[in-house]
This record gives sequence, C-alpha cells and structure tokens, in this order.
Amino acid sequence: MATLFSKIVKGDIPCYKIAEDDRFFAFLDINPLQEGHTLVIPKKEVDYIFDLDDKTLCDLHLFAKKIALALDKSIQCKRVGVVVLGLEVPHAHIHLVPLKDEGDVNFSNPKLKFTPEQFEAIASKIKFNLEL
Amino acid sequence: MATLFSKIVKGDIPCYKIAEDDRFFAFLDINPLQEGHTLVIPKKEVDYIFDLDDKTLCDLHLFAKKIALALDKSIQCKRVGVVVLGLEVPHAHIHLVPLKDEGDVNFSNPKLKFTPEQFEAIASKIKFNLEL
Repeated sequence: MATLFSKIVKGDIPCYKIAEDDRFFAFLDINPLQEGHTLVIPKKEVDYIFDLDDKTLCDLHLFAKKIALALDKSIQCKRVGVVVLGLEVPHAHIHLVPLKDEGDVNFSNPKLKFTPEQFEAIASKIKFNLEL
Repeated sequence: MATLFSKIVKGDIPCYKIAEDDRFFAFLDINPLQEGHTLVIPKKEVDYIFDLDDKTLCDLHLFAKKIALALDKSIQCKRVGVVVLGLEVPHAHIHLVPLKDEGDVNFSNPKLKFTPEQFEAIASKIKFNLEL
C-alpha cells in the first residue's frame, strides 16, 4: 500500500509543494513547528533513511541543502535545522526547520496553525528563493 | 581560535572516540539524550552544515550512516534519529540519537549521566559493530 507521502507525490493528496525532480520531492509540513517547516523525501518508498543506498542518501541531502538555503533567505531564522526521526510515516523524510532557538525542534511543542492562503504565501516565498 | 570540537579532534580535550578517518570524526556526546548518542563532525572547521561543499556534506552523511548502522546493532532502539541544530558549538555536527520514541530528541530533556567506565563500555560495543 502506498504511503501517505507517495500519495502526496502522486497528487492524490494535496500539498503545498516546494520543489520536485525525478527522484525527490519537498513540501510544507501541514503541522509545522515553525513557519517554513518543510519535508524532503525520496520518491522511492524506503522506510528507514539508513536503508537508502549511498548515492540516494547523498543526493537526498543535496536536494535538502538547496531547500534549506532557500529557507534561509525566505524565513526569519538563525539557521535551518535538520531532523530525521521516522517513527510515524514509514517513508524516509527529512524535516527542515527554520530555527531561532534549540527548543524549536521539540516535536512535543504545539504545532502552528496557518490558513491555506498563509501556507500558499509561505510556499511562494520559498520557491522564489530556490535555486535548483 | 579552535572550536571545542577541533580541540577534541586534536586530542587536547579527551573524548570517547567512536571512529575517525582523514576528514571526519565521531565521538559520544558527553551529555547524551539517550545511550549511544554520538556526534559526527567534519574535521574542517565550518560552522553551518549547509556551508559545507557538496562533496563534504555527502561524505559526512555517509560517514554518519556507518556509525548509525553500528548504533542500530549496539543499542536497543527502534532506529537512529539524525539531528543538526548547530546553535551552540560553531562547528557543524550531526547528532545521532538512538530512538525509542519521538520525544527522545527533545533537547530540553534532562541529559543522562554515565560514569567514565559506562561511557567506555558504550563506545566499545559501538566500535565492535562498526564497519568502516
């Protein structure tokens, strides 16, 4: 059965897409810890990130780097944090979280709420600064 | 001035070393969130992980992958989480944290305390399972 993220990649579930190439996909986390919180995934359905082959792991991180540099330009933050937990959705994903403080990546924190228009505006400004 | 981590690499500050090659270094976090919590760093002093050149970023993650696979074999956990925050020590570093639960990477959690003998024992079992 396709994972939630594969359904997003396929377009069966809508998302606020940031970027896509033939192997990777990035979209806003719908339950963000911070404004601009983005998920970066391989299109290939692999549960555990360390089960990815070396080349895919490298290229996933390089794809994430491009998104992170766009987040740095788009969102007021000190830098962009990187978190991979993977205990919920069984499809490897990197959280990119714009950070002002170390506590900003506490996944027990209440999530931010944005309207669809706000999510669209956040996605637009990140895409504007993205150099793929 | 050399960062705290450069002093550890040089041996001026002691650590519980897990692995080292010509470009990368891994050692136990002395204030661990979980048993086996390891820091993986480039020897090159670069503050922000996304300022690393692409090849160094890739190779750092591949070095971290080897450590993570050894942690999976050594420490009772569901999988190994990856966290890069970087707001404290100005030298890029990846936290590898054996996870049983998503809350395990909350950096506000109280840190675990181990004796030097316990740290040595943890490092030994990780090194035993390490394939570089």
